[in-house]
Amino acid sequence: MSEFGTLEDRVRRKSLLSKTMSATDCIKFFKTGQNLLWSGFTPAGYPKAIPIALADHVEANNLQGKLKFNLFAGASVGAETEDRWATLDMIDRRWPYQTGKNIAKGINTGRIRMGDKHLGLFAQDISYGFYTENGRYDIGIIEVSAITEDCGLALTSSCGIVAEAINLCDKIIIEVNTGQPSFEGLHDIHMQQKPPHRAPFLITEAHTRIGTPYVPCDPDKIIAVVDSKYRDKGRAFAGQDDTSDAIAGHLMEFFAHEVKKGRLPENLLPLQSGVGSIANAVVGGLANGPFTNLSVYTEVLQDTMLDFFDSGKLNFASACSLSLSEDPGFPRFFDNWDKYFGKCVLRPLSISNAPEPIRRLGCIAMNTPVEFDIYAHANSTLVGGTRMINGLGGSGDFLRNGYLKIMHSPSTRPSKTDPHGITCVVPKAPHIDHTEHDLDVLVTEQGLADLRGVAPKERAKLIIEKCGHPEYKPILNDYLQMSSKHCLERGVGHEPQMFDRAFKMQQNLAENGTMRIKNWDIKVDLCE
Amino acid sequence: MSEFGTLEDRVRRKSLLSKTMSATDCIKFFKTGQNLLWSGFTPAGYPKAIPIALADHVEANNLQGKLKFNLFAGASVGAETEDRWATLDMIDRRWPYQTGKNIAKGINTGRIRMGDKHLGLFAQDISYGFYTENGRYDIGIIEVSAITEDCGLALTSSCGIVAEAINLCDKIIIEVNTGQPSFEGLHDIHMQQKPPHRAPFLITEAHTRIGTPYVPCDPDKIIAVVDSKYRDKGRAFAGQDDTSDAIAGHLMEFFAHEVKKGRLPENLLPLQSGVGSIANAVVGGLANGPFTNLSVYTEVLQDTMLDFFDSGKLNFASACSLSLSEDPGFPRFFDNWDKYFGKCVLRPLSISNAPEPIRRLGCIAMNTPVEFDIYAHANSTLVGGTRMINGLGGSGDFLRNGYLKIMHSPSTRPSKTDPHGITCVVPKAPHIDHTEHDLDVLVTEQGLADLRGVAPKERAKLIIEKCGHPEYKPILNDYLQMSSKHCLERGVGHEPQMFDRAFKMQQNLAENGTMRIKNWDIKVDLCE
Repeated sequence: MSEFGTLEDRVRRKSLLSKTMSATDCIKFFKTGQNLLWSGFTPAGYPKAIPIALADHVEANNLQGKLKFNLFAGASVGAETEDRWATLDMIDRRWPYQTGKNIAKGINTGRIRMGDKHLGLFAQDISYGFYTENGRYDIGIIEVSAITEDCGLALTSSCGIVAEAINLCDKIIIEVNTGQPSFEGLHDIHMQQKPPHRAPFLITEAHTRIGTPYVPCDPDKIIAVVDSKYRDKGRAFAGQDDTSDAIAGHLMEFFAHEVKKGRLPENLLPLQSGVGSIANAVVGGLANGPFTNLSVYTEVLQDTMLDFFDSGKLNFASACSLSLSEDPGFPRFFDNWDKYFGKCVLRPLSISNAPEPIRRLGCIAMNTPVEFDIYAHANSTLVGGTRMINGLGGSGDFLRNGYLKIMHSPSTRPSKTDPHGITCVVPKAPHIDHTEHDLDVLVTEQGLADLRGVAPKERAKLIIEKCGHPEYKPILNDYLQMSSKHCLERGVGHEPQMFDRAFKMQQNLAENGTMRIKNWDIKVDLCE
Repeated sequence: MSEFGTLEDRVRRKSLLSKTMSATDCIKFFKTGQNLLWSGFTPAGYPKAIPIALADHVEANNLQGKLKFNLFAGASVGAETEDRWATLDMIDRRWPYQTGKNIAKGINTGRIRMGDKHLGLFAQDISYGFYTENGRYDIGIIEVSAITEDCGLALTSSCGIVAEAINLCDKIIIEVNTGQPSFEGLHDIHMQQKPPHRAPFLITEAHTRIGTPYVPCDPDKIIAVVDSKYRDKGRAFAGQDDTSDAIAGHLMEFFAHEVKKGRLPENLLPLQSGVGSIANAVVGGLANGPFTNLSVYTEVLQDTMLDFFDSGKLNFASACSLSLSEDPGFPRFFDNWDKYFGKCVLRPLSISNAPEPIRRLGCIAMNTPVEFDIYAHANSTLVGGTRMINGLGGSGDFLRNGYLKIMHSPSTRPSKTDPHGITCVVPKAPHIDHTEHDLDVLVTEQGLADLRGVAPKERAKLIIEKCGHPEYKPILNDYLQMSSKHCLERGVGHEPQMFDRAFKMQQNLAENGTMRIKNWDIKVDLCE
């Protein structure tokens, strides 16, 4: 029995009740090498009962490495599922994003094969049949709030790639989450055709609905219905600090300037904001700022969004997932359901992150990279250029197609070996996920560099001047001057670099524990 | 008098005839430091009479460096205009693309400040007011075929950014091209609003028209009407060779495979094809291939497109410009006007290259980079990582949003210092315009690498195996093995690189004239 209604209440397609079984009963359906599609997007709306039962099974029977799957979901899922699976060597391929220390370790030591893709592109490409030999998947595991009489799936806290999954999977297992209230009605599901039969997404404002609240599902594909009481293991709230507050301050000032210049309307344009402390500070800045009647068109709604609503400044928010904390996020949302329900919509990833609505609405895209370089190429994925953290996510979907394309980062990050920290502004990004052609504005706590209409060498000066940490500015300026002289003299200087030392700061960090190099002449340093 | 009709015939808005003057008479309107917006896209539809008169004026009066402009156009324009202007030091800033030896020299020696931007993004951003202090431009120079009674501009061989320009310029000078037939009726002009008032582009097939044939223009802004007889200096036809034929052959085979697998319909999907010998070979391959009822949704139509029409395989082509050769291209088009007219449409750059229709239609995007690396990052713009050639163009618009994202290149290019040539497949691209997240397929004359669903280290193996030149394969494989071992041992090996030697092949080319290095141990090479 559940305070939120029983399985029988939630499954209104009564013929499906005969397929009810326990998560353990479902283990029999799984075989090593299968391609699995899960619901879920960031740790929200992912299946839990079956993944946990499978992990318990592997652990209890010492099947590590013997029951291994290719796991595809809209983005990351909860650590108690994918990260535990990684620890138990249950993952071969993983697409297109992940979170967890153990899964990252598996990827960076070569045990797990991860593909990192723009989430909006992944959602599209998977429906095209691009990720498996025949484009099909063995089993889909979908968390739902309810099932309607005509087998429409009312999803939970995210939409992810469920709209695609139900067509791509041969068999579907449903987890009905009765451990929390139903999210029925929050979703706007548009089932899109593939080219050449694709129709426009007629979204003209963040709140436009173009679909229905349910994902239509063929009942014959459903092989099991499982009652689940597990709640999302929501992300811990990333608190603000002086650095993130300073960044938010620069952005508020910039928005006010843009409004004054007539380049932004007084209520700005639909906001996309990433995750983490800077994103939270920006949302906080907006909640306390001068702008009203705002809207959000993004991929993830976090706890701060509730404050934003409560401030009275935010009219509406569209996203792919509601990724609130277990406490106080979700309880707060459910306790104030009537207040928030009519102001939010969750959309399939293939629509929340599609270039079409992002560009039409003119989103203000804001995301945090690992680092960026003096010419405005940004690294969002690989620390040191080779080590995967989580993945690209939807940053490129919004940055490439938004109205204003903004990246924000602290100017330095803490280091164990250098009290001055390591710089996030480098001569050349060792891995590039967003190019100079994609970014308009870079911000650190030091300042904001508006790069629109600025050519590369001036851009480099501006980025160092506005965004660089004082401890690193002279080093970066020396590099710029040296490489400009070198390349311009040779008539090859549109975007100067010297490839024998472009990564010297990173190499020096690896060898000597600091990025504050003393001498740019690499030959002397290496050979003496 | 003209065999194609007089100025009086072409200007149906009779009140404008009082503003008729010679190109030389217009010189008085121009002052150094002005921001100019031109019509034109690739060498098609650009103003000629006035730019040439201004160049003559500078040359005759030794005004080099004293009459200098910021020049914005949809893409490149004819060499007799921008390249001559560069020679005469008449260009300060140049956005977003260019063609010509002298303008490239000006850019790479630091005399001309060039901004390189996705063309589709530039067309949008310029209307947002991003490229000048107040978002305005002093003078627009627009080539037209005719002006209607209500001052609608019937453009010539391209649309470029004219739909935006007429709103952004304070003054407009019209060049009426009476030296060639009128292109009236060929264009589909949709005047889009800015966010938050932007409406969907309801293009659902390459041939869908959503606008009118004319750009509406405020007649009071027009300060001069000039009769011009100059024709476009069309690009010389880039002939096919064994290499491009082999690449086209791999692609035809791939398309057939995709149709068989059910991932492409029998008439494929709308094709986007870049410029150059490989693009011509691909179009040639399609004209002679098994696929029928094809359509093209691209940015530039070249001479081979006429062959493609004549083959009976191509139903319709949508583009931003008709960039035919002076001979035989344009005469052939005009002589067969009735045959081609109903099968082509020219659209504004902000629509031809917009993510919305490209993704909806599911374009097959095919473009040629300078080089790509073993992880599928591609360099489209900067030779050696620093020297600008032409710019990014629309390659990213189509590659980022298409159904299949394909880049093709010879595996090696000729070198003056190495009979084996220089490799186009490198360990790490020294400049990155398209990332691993954007590309599905890489092709050289050696073979085709289908990268969909392939993780980085496997991707590297596949690219080297399928695309690398036999002379370079062992060198690239050695790098991959060495860097994989190094990074995996350290637990940082999602996408292995070694930054002390990732550019060693390029450095060796600069120092020793060959990319075929013998030893990957950089310390030994540098210090011994």
